[in-house]
Amino acid sequence: MRNQQDTIVIDALELSNWDRDFLTMLQQGGVTCVHACCGIWENARETLSKVGEWHRFFKENADLVLPVQQGDDIRRAKEEGKIGVVLGTQNTSPLEDELSLVSVFNKLGIKVMQLTYNNQNLVGSSCYEARDVGLSRYGKLVVQEMNRVGMVVDLSHVGEQTSLDAIHTSSRPVAITHANPDWIYPNKRNKPSEVLTALRDNGGVLGLCAYPHLVNGKETTLDEFCDMIVQTIDFMGIDQVGLGTDLTLNKSTEFLHWMRMGRWTHEMDYGAGSKENPSWPEWPSWFKTPADFPNIAQGLSDKGLSAEAINKVMGGNWLRFFTDGFKPEKGA
Amino acid sequence: MRNQQDTIVIDALELSNWDRDFLTMLQQGGVTCVHACCGIWENARETLSKVGEWHRFFKENADLVLPVQQGDDIRRAKEEGKIGVVLGTQNTSPLEDELSLVSVFNKLGIKVMQLTYNNQNLVGSSCYEARDVGLSRYGKLVVQEMNRVGMVVDLSHVGEQTSLDAIHTSSRPVAITHANPDWIYPNKRNKPSEVLTALRDNGGVLGLCAYPHLVNGKETTLDEFCDMIVQTIDFMGIDQVGLGTDLTLNKSTEFLHWMRMGRWTHEMDYGAGSKENPSWPEWPSWFKTPADFPNIAQGLSDKGLSAEAINKVMGGNWLRFFTDGFKPEKGA
Repeated sequence: MRNQQDTIVIDALELSNWDRDFLTMLQQGGVTCVHACCGIWENARETLSKVGEWHRFFKENADLVLPVQQGDDIRRAKEEGKIGVVLGTQNTSPLEDELSLVSVFNKLGIKVMQLTYNNQNLVGSSCYEARDVGLSRYGKLVVQEMNRVGMVVDLSHVGEQTSLDAIHTSSRPVAITHANPDWIYPNKRNKPSEVLTALRDNGGVLGLCAYPHLVNGKETTLDEFCDMIVQTIDFMGIDQVGLGTDLTLNKSTEFLHWMRMGRWTHEMDYGAGSKENPSWPEWPSWFKTPADFPNIAQGLSDKGLSAEAINKVMGGNWLRFFTDGFKPEKGA
Repeated sequence: MRNQQDTIVIDALELSNWDRDFLTMLQQGGVTCVHACCGIWENARETLSKVGEWHRFFKENADLVLPVQQGDDIRRAKEEGKIGVVLGTQNTSPLEDELSLVSVFNKLGIKVMQLTYNNQNLVGSSCYEARDVGLSRYGKLVVQEMNRVGMVVDLSHVGEQTSLDAIHTSSRPVAITHANPDWIYPNKRNKPSEVLTALRDNGGVLGLCAYPHLVNGKETTLDEFCDMIVQTIDFMGIDQVGLGTDLTLNKSTEFLHWMRMGRWTHEMDYGAGSKENPSWPEWPSWFKTPADFPNIAQGLSDKGLSAEAINKVMGGNWLRFFTDGFKPEKGA
């Protein structure tokens, strides 16, 4: 099955190697917009270089790519047949200890920030820390300032208490761009029902994730993945579920080690992997590249979802969420 | 004389202490827009903090101030009775050695960059170096990239050869936001006829400067200052002369030392001052604060300039120049 002509497909997280081949695969998959990871451990200065690299990428691929800073940019990408790119960081490390840098990076087009990556930071705790005492004093101010300027709060790798505190603090809906319910696939990176209940009540959106370590590895069938989607819709409602595949295509082992170990450890850390599965995971046969997005739409159709419901999951919910979430607060 | 109701007054450089009192003085002076100095020696990271401070200032004074990134913002400031603020840096130090940071700081709203402050840097030489070998290889690329994104090249403190090279390299008109003809007031910071001839031929604009060290000190009369304006119009033409007062109101001695000595020397350096005049200079009686702008309009009227000519000098020329100069190149 092809995506319907009018379907807006949005992937709420990818870390892949963005070259022309990759863009072609996104187009083949009918993808309209991707939230692309612009940093993991980078500080303020390093993030400037990353943004600079993206500017160059936008310039050199202007025939295929369009930077997204508001919902209308996503609609324009659809009209022009381009890939819209939302920049975000999977950490608040670019802010360092400086509250004013929230508006500075927002102005630079960083429209999503995950409060923590895999470690405790100035803002809160990650899902991998032994204890999570919740959002820090600074973290609370950061969430409020993100609300003010229209930068989306992402809780994907964030610890449970910090996530609950952030949802409680936030005056606006927040996102979990790439994680699954942990009662379906038990994993520290997946989310307990307490957090997803709070997300549901907050009006936020959950991006379900095909990253092999967060499901059942490459053996996971399309039917099983779509079964998770259906169960999650039952839990969250049809308007609060989307996709965030966490696709990591053609990235080096060096990058994998940077992703997991940054500069914070000299020992091997496996992140969502394990000693038995230390490398980049192999992806399931039905989702090897972004050209495979139509397989998911087909899988959902096979599960009996309506065209309208499929459109919401494939991108409609993220479109609504990003359109609202990227706007500054009134008067901001 | 008051400024005419429809006069747009633009000051192409001020470094003053931006508080509510200062904003009130700007309003009293009928000032529509100021190019405000957002950095002198600061590197990339430090400039982020400076931009963050300006964001906070814009937020806390939104009733009086409006950030300017394009010509229409200046017109909107006029309509709304607010002070438009163009951010710029008096150095390319924020770029460090990274060409991509031109577009990054442009996106952050740094719409003017002076190629050098008082010292040689990665881009070229200042007016105070013993030898100026001109624009560096990197400097040439920086000028071209500034042209592309619509960031104005400012040559105020820049050395003669570097200035001539920059004008030759630039595909667009450049600015000298704050300096005077050196044959009227001899000073290293003022500009020789070779540079002003090249600027004229390039279509650029010169902002004449009331900074006491660049004229005849506080004794300079309004008549003398306006005489310089008239002579400069004779040389440059009526469409290429504006004001760039370099007003530095209520800044500390600590800031004066930072401005002159940065981190590059442990010895006293006097910049445009001298051992005999080491402190902040005293300003002439007719230009003590920005509330005094109408005195200049009056002085020009007394010299016999037409209302149209006065409007061009007071802001019309900068309005045209900034409107064009802040636009990205077609296709950029």
